[in-house]
Formats: sequence, structure tokens, C-alpha cells
Amino acid sequence: MISKLVVIGVGLIGGSLACALRKAGKVETVVGVGRGIANLEQAVELGVIDSYSQDAAQAVVDADMVVIGATLGSTADILARIAPALGPGTVVTDVGSTKASVVASARAALGEKFARFVPGHPIAGTEHSGAQAAFAELYVGHRVILTPVAETDTDALICVRAMWETAGARVAQMSVADHDRVLAATSHLPHMLAFTLVDMLAAASDADDIFAFAAGGFRDFTRIASSNPEMWRDIALANRDALLEICGAYNARLERLMQALRDGDGATLELSFKRAKEARDRCVVPQANVRRQ
Amino acid sequence: MISKLVVIGVGLIGGSLACALRKAGKVETVVGVGRGIANLEQAVELGVIDSYSQDAAQAVVDADMVVIGATLGSTADILARIAPALGPGTVVTDVGSTKASVVASARAALGEKFARFVPGHPIAGTEHSGAQAAFAELYVGHRVILTPVAETDTDALICVRAMWETAGARVAQMSVADHDRVLAATSHLPHMLAFTLVDMLAAASDADDIFAFAAGGFRDFTRIASSNPEMWRDIALANRDALLEICGAYNARLERLMQALRDGDGATLELSFKRAKEARDRCVVPQANVRRQ
Repeated sequence: MISKLVVIGVGLIGGSLACALRKAGKVETVVGVGRGIANLEQAVELGVIDSYSQDAAQAVVDADMVVIGATLGSTADILARIAPALGPGTVVTDVGSTKASVVASARAALGEKFARFVPGHPIAGTEHSGAQAAFAELYVGHRVILTPVAETDTDALICVRAMWETAGARVAQMSVADHDRVLAATSHLPHMLAFTLVDMLAAASDADDIFAFAAGGFRDFTRIASSNPEMWRDIALANRDALLEICGAYNARLERLMQALRDGDGATLELSFKRAKEARDRCVVPQANVRRQ
Repeated sequence: MISKLVVIGVGLIGGSLACALRKAGKVETVVGVGRGIANLEQAVELGVIDSYSQDAAQAVVDADMVVIGATLGSTADILARIAPALGPGTVVTDVGSTKASVVASARAALGEKFARFVPGHPIAGTEHSGAQAAFAELYVGHRVILTPVAETDTDALICVRAMWETAGARVAQMSVADHDRVLAATSHLPHMLAFTLVDMLAAASDADDIFAFAAGGFRDFTRIASSNPEMWRDIALANRDALLEICGAYNARLERLMQALRDGDGATLELSFKRAKEARDRCVVPQANVRRQ
């Protein structure tokens, strides 16, 4: 049981976690922290949080658990602000899409309290945002990756793991480097590819014609290009090294495919497409119960 | 009214067109042609066609309209086989995803009958195939592109346009070159990008881990990598020039984005992502009524 949970950034991610813990009866009080009063008031009305504060440092006093659900770009600042106010038993975790950058910020900001910081990343979401998008079932059946480091306190890790399991998530642990590499491959690179394609087509003189004749495959392929630009700027910069590495490998492979095409080498094209189809049909499981609102 | 319609290749595309015309009462007899007897018999049972033949040349005798719904790779061969048997009034059209290659084949095969060949491409589909996947509403609200050339007979063009409009499609005309360029941009390049990504990730030593943590965005982005490898080999080869050109432009743009990332130039990243998001939100309309079976 969490006596006092503080959620900094009451949006889809932090709000849904609060909803899930409340629904499970595993939290007594939830305090929301954010910059927008309207969103916080709505969060209270919707029962996502019990009360709110705009002062993160004040809010975290006496908290058992602090979840930083804010954007990646603001995490370092939040950590610095709450650090002096954190009690010795307070566990802190985050939901950021990259982990090396967050771990560096947390290590710098938290000092000896860094042992009770557990880096985390829930792999879940919808295209909606804000407290009004939150719902208790968001994490059911979805993965949450925790990336504890050498200093991480085992009890703190157990607390964070239990919290996510209460929300219905399947919790995995991996190293910071593995997380950032896997996410570069499955999320950050695909976003770069989709943004680049749509940006290129939009710049064409006949952009309207081009988009007018796009079919369902294009819509699916480019859905992630509708993601939040500031958020993705922050993610790309935060995971720069892993992203540059995999993007270089991707570019080289795409160039090889184009060379096969130049050569009229149908066998190489077909083999590559076939391996891809087999891998996707075998490995990409149907989506769990994300509610599309 | 079409008195005798011959559909060569009774799959999702050709079969759904037959279903739509029958439902609208605009065709008297539909003859299916294909290599697989089981599929043809099922097509008769399902009411997609009235009868079938395995001899395309024999089947097209006395036809008003011949629709080549077979794969791109077999179109040249089919045209050569039916050419001697086509009557002077028979209109022929196709559904191929590239048009320059089909027009070249048709010009070579049909001789003076080439004037009654109308190159066409319906922009519709589902992930299913075969006669059993066919349904009358597939084309409702979807685009069909016709690419008549200088020799194309106006009456033949009008017949083909009317046929697709009867099926509920919105018919557009453009040049062969424009079609192949637009489709390279919105369909062929995205397929190459998705195939390349999944093939690369599948080759990684920790491929299972990578796919295990893929989220909904990855599933959507890579859905087209589950497409038929032989079909996409044929499309890539058939539209080689347009595809190589746009892929080169894409690679250059991706490299510029990576350079911005190397430079830590967040403003350039954000601007590119923002333009992409705005274009997609503005231009990519929600999907029309494709029935996902």
C-alpha cells in the first residue's frame, strides 16, 4: 500500500498509473503536480488525483512514492527541484523514453538519494494526452522496463516493480544501454523515418496530389509522424548516440537494397522482403488492450 | 451494362470489382480466369463469378470488358496470350500498382488493339487475398487512378471510368509518369523502408528482445512489411527508376536530419518534426470504409 503518491505531470501516463492504483485500492492519497491549473482541476474532478500543488518540492514531503510523469526535457529540472525535499524513505521513479540521459540527471541531482531512484519506462500510450485521457486499464498487459543501476536500492526497485504490476503491467529489467538501444530500434528510429518521409512529401510541389492518393498502408506507416514534435526533439537528443548508430546501420542497409534494385537483382529484393515478412508475422504480437479513445 | 465481363485473376481486387458490378446489376455474366481451380470453384460458390475457364484466350472471346486482376509479374504474359482472341470492341484494363511497365507490355502485346487498353490502378485493399476475401464494398469512397496515353480510345476510357464509378470509386486521371512518381512516394518507398527496418532488426543477435518491446507505433509502422514478398519484388523492379529517384532524395534528407542530431541542433529537428506532423494532420484523411475481415 502506498500511503502518499505524488505524480509530477498528470497526463495520460502519470494519470493512468494513478487511476490504476486507486482502482486496485493500493494507494491512499494521490497528489498531482503540474504547471497547468485547468488540467490539475480536471484531474481532481475526474478522480485521477485527490489534490494538487504547483510546488513540486513542497508536494513530495512525506511521500512514499514520487512518479515523474513529465516530459523528458523537464525531468532534470524537476529532479533538481525536488531533491532537497525528498525524505530518506521516498522512492522516486520516472517514465522517460530514454534512460541514460535520465540516469545522468538523477545521479547529478539526487546525491546520496540517487539509490532510491528507479529509472523506468512504460511501453504504452494512446494518441491522446492530458488528465482527461487517463484510464486505469492503460497498462494492462503492456511492458514496463526498469533499468536499475549498480547503486539502486533493492527495496526501492521492489516497490516500483510492485506498483507497475498492480497496474497490470508486465515488468522487465534490462541495462540502461540495452534499453536505449532497443528503444532506438523499435521506436526512435521508426519515428525519424516517418517524420522524414512526411516532411519530404510535404515539401513537394504537388504535395496535395501525393497525399490525396495515399492508401491505408501510408496512413499506418506515418501515424507516428503525428507525434508531438517537442517531445521527439527531446527524445532524439537524449538518445543521440544509440540513435545515430542504428540510423547509420539502417542507411547502409537501405543503400544495399537500392543497389540490388539498380542491378535488377530480384532475388536479393525478394529474400530481404521475405525475411522481413516472416519476422514480423512471427514476432510482432497483436496489440494488447489499448483503449483508443 | 456489361454483357460479358472477364476477370483474369479472381482475388480480392478483381473479385471485389465483380461483386460490386453484380450487386449494382450492371453486369450480366462474369467469367473468371485463373490457375487455381479451388479458388475458381470457391468464387463460383460465393457468387463472385458465374463460371470459369483456365484458358484466358478462350475466355475473352465476345467479352465487352476484360479486367486483368493478376499479379504485376504475370500481366505481360496474360496480355500476349489474350491479344489474338480480343474482339475489336473489347475493352481491356488492369489493376497494376505501376503503370509505365504495364503500358509498355500492353503496347508491345496488343498492337492496334492497344487503343482499347485503359491502364488502371485502384488504391484499395485489405490484408486478405483470394476470392474468399472479395466483397462488393471494397472500392466505395476509394480512389482509382486511370492513366490513358495518347493512343487510348475515348470510348474505352469512358467505359472503364463508368465501371469503377459503379463500384463506388472516385476515379482520377493522371499521366503514367505522375502515377508512378506519386505511388513511389506514398506506397513503394514506404514499403522499402518498412521491409528494410524489419529485416535489419530480425538480423540482430537480440531480435527477440527487440520485437518483444515493440509498441503500437512499431506495429503500425511495420504492418506493410507483412506484405507479399514476390508482389513487392515485382513492383519495385517495375517502378525502378521512380523508386530509385525518390529513395535517393529520402536518403539525403535522412542524412541531413542525422547531421542535425550529431550537431545537437534541436531547432532543426523540431522544425522538421513539426512540418511533418502538420502535413499529416492536415492531409491524411481518415481511412474510408475498408472492411477488415
